[in-house]
Amino acid sequence: MRTPTTSRGRAVRDRLVSSAAELFHARGVHGTSVDDVLERAGAGKGQFYRYFDSKEDLVPEVMARQIDQWVDRHAALLGNLSSLDGFRAWCDALVANSSGRNFARWCPIAGLAGELVQADRRGLRHIGAAAFQRMASYLTAGLSAMQQAGELRADADPARLAVMFVACFEGGLLVSVATGDERPLRDSLDAALASLAAQTV
Amino acid sequence: MRTPTTSRGRAVRDRLVSSAAELFHARGVHGTSVDDVLERAGAGKGQFYRYFDSKEDLVPEVMARQIDQWVDRHAALLGNLSSLDGFRAWCDALVANSSGRNFARWCPIAGLAGELVQADRRGLRHIGAAAFQRMASYLTAGLSAMQQAGELRADADPARLAVMFVACFEGGLLVSVATGDERPLRDSLDAALASLAAQTV
Repeated sequence: MRTPTTSRGRAVRDRLVSSAAELFHARGVHGTSVDDVLERAGAGKGQFYRYFDSKEDLVPEVMARQIDQWVDRHAALLGNLSSLDGFRAWCDALVANSSGRNFARWCPIAGLAGELVQADRRGLRHIGAAAFQRMASYLTAGLSAMQQAGELRADADPARLAVMFVACFEGGLLVSVATGDERPLRDSLDAALASLAAQTV
Repeated sequence: MRTPTTSRGRAVRDRLVSSAAELFHARGVHGTSVDDVLERAGAGKGQFYRYFDSKEDLVPEVMARQIDQWVDRHAALLGNLSSLDGFRAWCDALVANSSGRNFARWCPIAGLAGELVQADRRGLRHIGAAAFQRMASYLTAGLSAMQQAGELRADADPARLAVMFVACFEGGLLVSVATGDERPLRDSLDAALASLAAQTV
């Protein structure tokens, strides 16, 4: 992967990544070819290989972009996770956002991670792991603040609790999107909230 | 979809479905062509179109087979879910089975459902919904028995609790497979167990 030195180059590279993001989400990495990406981006092979060696080179870029967008969408609530009420509000927002879109799609981060773990494409599984860790890190920050403020028990593990929230969110959302019913997401997040509440002081 | 009338025909059809199951798991539905399935099954186009109209015709067959295998693997424990201890034993087994295989793969049912919801391939999303409902139905049976025995509160909803378990299992397993760490699966199942315990009498 190489970085463009001109603004025009940056625009082309950016278009290649955003086109790949859409295609990976709709068809999977395996179902997308470099030619598909070029066609959607309106770019040529020469432009692609100036910045990337292969389709697989696009995967970490696409994942980073999906996480950035997720963080941007949740910024206000993610910055307010230093109390149990903050976590409750965040969970309410997750349910409201997803059902408001009629569960139109599963989380693109988990969807891509799911494909990577399934086929373990050229050892890309670690990209899924890093993505979940990065999502969790925003929750860990809030939980650590709760612990320092004496609101979370000293023997609780903020990073571990954070990952449990991500797992319950992703599983609940998958089943909610498949069924078009908000209850699986609501209930799996409530289970995570109850686990957290049991460790508050 | 047509049913073969001879044992040879049944064997060919069966081989087509099992080949498609392996390929869908490794590459996704979008990343698999009818030719790929024929090559793996050692079958010809004429044989395929005798039983199926399209690749999409294989999807419900593959899903049904993945669920049958899941139920077969868990039969002993799924038949013993009529108490909180039975649920605890089942969750322990889920963690032990998955980590014993070094989290080699995500659940093929959820993997396929994830692809179907993401692309909503020709309206195949409902196949994912039905699959999760069928997994949940085995848990619902145990929870209803608990309720009739007075061990689960009368106002608890067995079917809803069952779907929550499936959601927590699938999300926890996805993150555990990605990270190679059993704690996300353990913790999301523990959250589900605590929700269940809170509704027992």
